[in-house]
Amino acid sequence: MTTLKVGLIGTGRLGRMYGQYLARRVPGVALAAVADRKADVAKQFAGELGIAKCYADHQELLSDGEIEAVAVVTSTSTHKQVVIDAARSGKAIFCEKPISLTLEDAREMIAAVEAAGVFFQMAFQRRFDAGYLAAKNKLDAGAIGEPVMFTSISRDPYAPPLEFCDPKVSGGLIADMGVHDFDAARMYMGEVARVNAIGGTLAYPEMKSVGDIDNAIIDLEFQNGTLGSVQLSRNAVYGYDIRGEIWGTKGSIQIGYYRQTPILMFTREGIAHDAVPYFMERFENAYLAQIQNFAEHVRQGLAPSITGADAMAALRISVAANLSLRERRPVDVLAMAERQPA
Amino acid sequence: MTTLKVGLIGTGRLGRMYGQYLARRVPGVALAAVADRKADVAKQFAGELGIAKCYADHQELLSDGEIEAVAVVTSTSTHKQVVIDAARSGKAIFCEKPISLTLEDAREMIAAVEAAGVFFQMAFQRRFDAGYLAAKNKLDAGAIGEPVMFTSISRDPYAPPLEFCDPKVSGGLIADMGVHDFDAARMYMGEVARVNAIGGTLAYPEMKSVGDIDNAIIDLEFQNGTLGSVQLSRNAVYGYDIRGEIWGTKGSIQIGYYRQTPILMFTREGIAHDAVPYFMERFENAYLAQIQNFAEHVRQGLAPSITGADAMAALRISVAANLSLRERRPVDVLAMAERQPA
Amino acid sequence: MTTLKVGLIGTGRLGRMYGQYLARRVPGVALAAVADRKADVAKQFAGELGIAKCYADHQELLSDGEIEAVAVVTSTSTHKQVVIDAARSGKAIFCEKPISLTLEDAREMIAAVEAAGVFFQMAFQRRFDAGYLAAKNKLDAGAIGEPVMFTSISRDPYAPPLEFCDPKVSGGLIADMGVHDFDAARMYMGEVARVNAIGGTLAYPEMKSVGDIDNAIIDLEFQNGTLGSVQLSRNAVYGYDIRGEIWGTKGSIQIGYYRQTPILMFTREGIAHDAVPYFMERFENAYLAQIQNFAEHVRQGLAPSITGADAMAALRISVAANLSLRERRPVDVLAMAERQPA
Amino acid sequence: MTTLKVGLIGTGRLGRMYGQYLARRVPGVALAAVADRKADVAKQFAGELGIAKCYADHQELLSDGEIEAVAVVTSTSTHKQVVIDAARSGKAIFCEKPISLTLEDAREMIAAVEAAGVFFQMAFQRRFDAGYLAAKNKLDAGAIGEPVMFTSISRDPYAPPLEFCDPKVSGGLIADMGVHDFDAARMYMGEVARVNAIGGTLAYPEMKSVGDIDNAIIDLEFQNGTLGSVQLSRNAVYGYDIRGEIWGTKGSIQIGYYRQTPILMFTREGIAHDAVPYFMERFENAYLAQIQNFAEHVRQGLAPSITGADAMAALRISVAANLSLRERRPVDVLAMAERQPA
Repeated sequence: MTTLKVGLIGTGRLGRMYGQYLARRVPGVALAAVADRKADVAKQFAGELGIAKCYADHQELLSDGEIEAVAVVTSTSTHKQVVIDAARSGKAIFCEKPISLTLEDAREMIAAVEAAGVFFQMAFQRRFDAGYLAAKNKLDAGAIGEPVMFTSISRDPYAPPLEFCDPKVSGGLIADMGVHDFDAARMYMGEVARVNAIGGTLAYPEMKSVGDIDNAIIDLEFQNGTLGSVQLSRNAVYGYDIRGEIWGTKGSIQIGYYRQTPILMFTREGIAHDAVPYFMERFENAYLAQIQNFAEHVRQGLAPSITGADAMAALRISVAANLSLRERRPVDVLAMAERQPA
Repeated sequence: MTTLKVGLIGTGRLGRMYGQYLARRVPGVALAAVADRKADVAKQFAGELGIAKCYADHQELLSDGEIEAVAVVTSTSTHKQVVIDAARSGKAIFCEKPISLTLEDAREMIAAVEAAGVFFQMAFQRRFDAGYLAAKNKLDAGAIGEPVMFTSISRDPYAPPLEFCDPKVSGGLIADMGVHDFDAARMYMGEVARVNAIGGTLAYPEMKSVGDIDNAIIDLEFQNGTLGSVQLSRNAVYGYDIRGEIWGTKGSIQIGYYRQTPILMFTREGIAHDAVPYFMERFENAYLAQIQNFAEHVRQGLAPSITGADAMAALRISVAANLSLRERRPVDVLAMAERQPA
Repeated sequence: MTTLKVGLIGTGRLGRMYGQYLARRVPGVALAAVADRKADVAKQFAGELGIAKCYADHQELLSDGEIEAVAVVTSTSTHKQVVIDAARSGKAIFCEKPISLTLEDAREMIAAVEAAGVFFQMAFQRRFDAGYLAAKNKLDAGAIGEPVMFTSISRDPYAPPLEFCDPKVSGGLIADMGVHDFDAARMYMGEVARVNAIGGTLAYPEMKSVGDIDNAIIDLEFQNGTLGSVQLSRNAVYGYDIRGEIWGTKGSIQIGYYRQTPILMFTREGIAHDAVPYFMERFENAYLAQIQNFAEHVRQGLAPSITGADAMAALRISVAANLSLRERRPVDVLAMAERQPA
Repeated sequence: MTTLKVGLIGTGRLGRMYGQYLARRVPGVALAAVADRKADVAKQFAGELGIAKCYADHQELLSDGEIEAVAVVTSTSTHKQVVIDAARSGKAIFCEKPISLTLEDAREMIAAVEAAGVFFQMAFQRRFDAGYLAAKNKLDAGAIGEPVMFTSISRDPYAPPLEFCDPKVSGGLIADMGVHDFDAARMYMGEVARVNAIGGTLAYPEMKSVGDIDNAIIDLEFQNGTLGSVQLSRNAVYGYDIRGEIWGTKGSIQIGYYRQTPILMFTREGIAHDAVPYFMERFENAYLAQIQNFAEHVRQGLAPSITGADAMAALRISVAANLSLRERRPVDVLAMAERQPA
């Protein structure tokens, strides 16, 4: 099999991580070009990796005939244009989450992908995390009987910059963070029928100025009658706290861990250890496995591991949860889809 | 101070535990009499403890002028009559939870207590558990800043007998189990304004025949804008799983533990330990501290640690949650109170 | 079966604990009398428990014909006289550890017990701890194959008063603390053939003035060829740290726990919990079970659970370890016995 | 700074790991050539990495003028010849542990390195592990006061092939495994003055045929009077168990962890998780950091992080411990050095 030439679009923190992986740690792949609207950032990063091709415009990268696949790691608000352009250029596409901020945008993107017949794979790195994967395998093997409840907790160590909190930029707490939990919920439990969300701006009052909340609980009723609960927060002052529990008729699986450094301190103040600092430390290996999986599926002609339909489904739950929060009532997730014409 | 003479009404599992404590481990107290409708059960138990007075009717015990205080540990459906009778007899009253199955009954009981001017203390043993107590102290000391979310998980190791599951007998899952979590929620976070409940009969289909569920999630919105989530289940096949988390602006407190026996096994199958079997093992010391606290407060003329109003407030949340579950919509807790005339 | 009348000799901290247990929590037992050389201490304690008989001299208690059994909880240096006197008086004897400071004294005591034909049971409360017991059961059930190594760690939260550290009073670190570990070692692994001890006065230099050490490691070679290691320390500033590990051909059992209060704190400083404060908290239930076991064995005419020979064997290891420490060479334990004529 | 051209000598399991790191994950380094006596193994591995130069004889690689540094990852018995040849060729040398099986060989190697004036760095990957590093930093920062005792436990999940157990090939249990613990002991506590070792062939009787043991305890007395204990075993059937504890006057640091996959299973059988499988999983990041450190120190002209003297010191403790085991007596470590003339 020949080497897959990949172009990286977006060189922010996550983009640079993927860029380093693509350059060195993904078998069968060569990172062939880098693009970023901030031309100097792209140039410096390309230099670090020894990549000759460097563009300030994603269209230029897409016009490069040598490139067979692209990783889209730009800000969410630009996903729509970049993915549609990439689809039209015929490249295989890896798209960082969330696919978009609105269901309408997502539908257009998926329509463009389908029209072009290109390979499209979404990023939800938890699916490639050793813990989430092992839990899936245990569940499928019947280790806990039938799953009846799913709990998912996502907590950031601090609030994002205020401009990012604006729901029009990031989707706000529920869409930006919760989409990971909603995707995990679907993976373990099936489709969500109905949601009820409560939340508040309780730790960072300044967030109210942009209309975002910092804590939320979203309850899920799955189509098969089982139950779910998602907790989101921006004020985990001790670190990055990502946990899940699959609760079954014959047992339970808890996913996650707290401690980063393998030492335990015993002093007059008690017994203590540190915590996971943030997502790069928690999901480093999952991000690597995810981009390796994308490359492998493209190279071997396999179907995408996570599809546009998966992206839509998780986004639909986010949109329904935000509506529930605003209107203070449970919302049917499928009704969301019907309300919003493609 | 003279010795307080206490009568025990109800000699089921919990009643016998209180009886043993009152007979031997509560300073300043003498267990003076025992009553149970099952005369032979009462007689045998009295014999074990060396108690001479033994009644088949609670009224007889209440007529005993020597007795100054009673512990009411009968089945919930009889609480109303026994407590009203006890109030009229002028005894100080300790009442096992839940106070009653309906708000109407509870109001009558409290009215009778107030009319008689007797001491009345409710049982919510978690308030006397070392973990729940330490969490309260840490919270009050500001260790985690302002509390913004409370999570409470109660899971029984198996389902109760089917006849007990009947909501008309026990109140059902939400009233029978959840009332502990609702009381803890109030202790840490304040009054609950609104609830939303979802649930299902997911592990024990036979429960449907009596109209009960075996798993539920109840979300709480407190009057101060903070959030809460209660998870209830009857299918913790590994043991009795009681946990809580108080989530604050500057940290978090997790309450609870899993392991009963202090050994850890390392074998080819992995690393494993046992779990807490059931509530007697988990809350043994809390039950003791609770009945000691009752006796101490009666003897020293202090106000009750947990009042009838506390019992009403927790029950009101249960009733609202059950209504929310049935009607599939959020329910205002205060509206509950208004709907149901005293 | 009639009630066993027990007399308590010694009302220090441990004596008062046994006294409370004997008075209230040991089935089939009545605490009939109390003796302590400090007459006022004995009198006050007897008053608290409502015991009429109170003596300043153990001989007076032993002369009391009503008393059938005695618990000897005096300071170690007086064990010899009290036990010999008790044996001659024909009472059943419970003796707190260590039996004595020298092998010679222990031999005399055991000879007196045998001559009188009385019941004699040693105290080693770890044998009645839920963890140590469960480990024994797992080991006997073959859960870890054949045991090949035993590790035992005993650490006190602070140093005893200097006068107690004097090896002539307490036996010093190795005899006072280590005797528990040596007894556990015998329970799990069999007889010890040879020891090598190293140690130092490393945390409390003032201990050198009385000739004691504060940290030690004693390695054990069992007669069956297996291995052991005991670590002792007086400077566990965080609490009372008691642990063990039975290491087998097919797995391992770790015994012990660190956390006292079931809460976990998450703050900017990390994730933390408290520790077990001291032996009363750690072994409360074990002490109760131990004295109940004594009473049960006396009442039912069973053989003692822990014999004088057990006490001798543990003491012999202590003596050999102290000799090894002084002479800086491995010491045969059996040689100890031979060196020291009875 | 220009790119450092490194040659890899030895392509066994550990050699291939270093090879992959050198090829892709060590900044400023190019893996320029590979050598292994098994020519076909070397060739295949070079092919996988896209390395053109591939030798069956380390001398050929050493004659390659382009190569500036070598990583020696051959079997221990060949270290002497390869390192001496490498020194004479003027290359910077990274040498996998242990440096050699005898003090004589080690002395000759170090003499050759010194005569040639080349850079020589030993491998002890624990020094680069996040846990061992953090413990060192905490200790140096005074977090636990003065260290007074060090415990180190190394346990392999299974026995090596019998031919490897032969002490003449691998040094046997104490030299092969324990050298890591002895190095850690020196890092935290200083130089070792005296050792006492006990051990046995307790889990794998077949090892007796080659003269090795499978379990050992080695006690350490440091020159500063502090204490240490090292436990070694080959029968950790549950996984790879590597732990340490630095015990100080004001607290303690425990190093290590048990669980590999971040899930916890709750079933009727109890609460369980997996264990770390083996050293590649446990020390993956440490091996990477170690070879990066080597490259960085060579490129920047810094002194070696771990010297030949460090290798000698750890080896000397191994040799003394083996002598102690054979002669069943404590052995002075410095006497080892004196006994064995260079």
